[in-house]
Amino acid sequence: MTDKLTIIGAPISPYVRKVLAILIMKDLPFRCIPQVPFLADDNFTRISPLRRIPVLKHGDFTLPDSTAIIQYLEEAFPDTPAAYPGDAKARARARWFEEYADDHFGRNVIFNLFFQRVVRPRVLKQEPDQALIDQTLESTLPNALDYLEGEVPADGFLAGDISVGDITIAAMMKNAFWAGWEMDEDRWPGFAAWLKRTSDHPALMKVNTLADEMMAVPPTEHEAIMERFHAAA
Amino acid sequence: MTDKLTIIGAPISPYVRKVLAILIMKDLPFRCIPQVPFLADDNFTRISPLRRIPVLKHGDFTLPDSTAIIQYLEEAFPDTPAAYPGDAKARARARWFEEYADDHFGRNVIFNLFFQRVVRPRVLKQEPDQALIDQTLESTLPNALDYLEGEVPADGFLAGDISVGDITIAAMMKNAFWAGWEMDEDRWPGFAAWLKRTSDHPALMKVNTLADEMMAVPPTEHEAIMERFHAAA
Repeated sequence: MTDKLTIIGAPISPYVRKVLAILIMKDLPFRCIPQVPFLADDNFTRISPLRRIPVLKHGDFTLPDSTAIIQYLEEAFPDTPAAYPGDAKARARARWFEEYADDHFGRNVIFNLFFQRVVRPRVLKQEPDQALIDQTLESTLPNALDYLEGEVPADGFLAGDISVGDITIAAMMKNAFWAGWEMDEDRWPGFAAWLKRTSDHPALMKVNTLADEMMAVPPTEHEAIMERFHAAA
Repeated sequence: MTDKLTIIGAPISPYVRKVLAILIMKDLPFRCIPQVPFLADDNFTRISPLRRIPVLKHGDFTLPDSTAIIQYLEEAFPDTPAAYPGDAKARARARWFEEYADDHFGRNVIFNLFFQRVVRPRVLKQEPDQALIDQTLESTLPNALDYLEGEVPADGFLAGDISVGDITIAAMMKNAFWAGWEMDEDRWPGFAAWLKRTSDHPALMKVNTLADEMMAVPPTEHEAIMERFHAAA
């Protein structure tokens, strides 16, 4: 537990925020280097073969992939609050929602919306693909929320206590909102209420607020914001 | 342990084979229903929201996603041989390779090759996308093997004992070979030797042989092959 925990990756990424939220829930001290993967040099490929964020450094151990990182934190620090439910079936359900969010929701919903509407114009100075944006707003994202509306409970969370499944989907939704998605709360009332419950968790609120600050300024100012976050932690 | 384990999904899928290989390694009795997702009716969406295989049924518990399934089997049957290494860092490494294989290797390498060259013409009666095939053969797959050549040890496996990381990558490679990939063993000698060691594991060999039989005949005959496999188990 004496080895330092470092997360490499910009908190604007939902994959980074899910890990930071879990670190905060576990009360584990960490430092975050707000790397934007599209701006990383060739050396980044050596620690993240798919050039994705986040990457964990724990002493001399390096680990890419948000899902593998959270499972590792759970196992390396067993005395901290759990990121997964206690029962094997509930844990499996939490992992399924994490995978659904990371893979389908993240890559097919958020990237097609957030990447096109925010990253392409702001970071890459490219035109967005309007057809992808329209398809996401009119079909992919509504279909995903139709599915999740049927899965969220009237009270509580997706797999018992709040877990990595809830945190991951809620982190993704924040990026959809940044990209201008306006959710119809009458169409998805259960999901909207669940999203509020999850987003109100202090750990997720803390990292979402951090990322809100970053969204308001250019990437060159993100390190200074991160330093203030670390100083206050 | 009295509830029946059923795997829904055609063993021609590497995602199904990785789960079947782990079930065999754990010596857990199971039945497999060789469902091809592209031929499934609308009801399939209710048990697999992304219409992917495999899906696990354990009594009345239903779980999609091969990664979540294997982790569930590991936790639900703790007295069986482990699918993951014993040490937290080695387990994290095994999970990273599983994710690398499932996500990048599976979706960007194998689907672009196997799906285009085998599934589209044989199952969907569609023309393959030759540009995708060429890009995969000339760039994506060689780049992935360049990376893995640097990761495989001279002896043994990716994370200590043979684990889900090895099984997953080796299962994927089988589909690349079915799609006509000819591996240059002089360019990737370490990977080729590791692949042989992994593919020689009796559990993987058993499911690869089963799938070889299925590859040789139309899908209408797969159930009969599966029944013979169950009868012999």
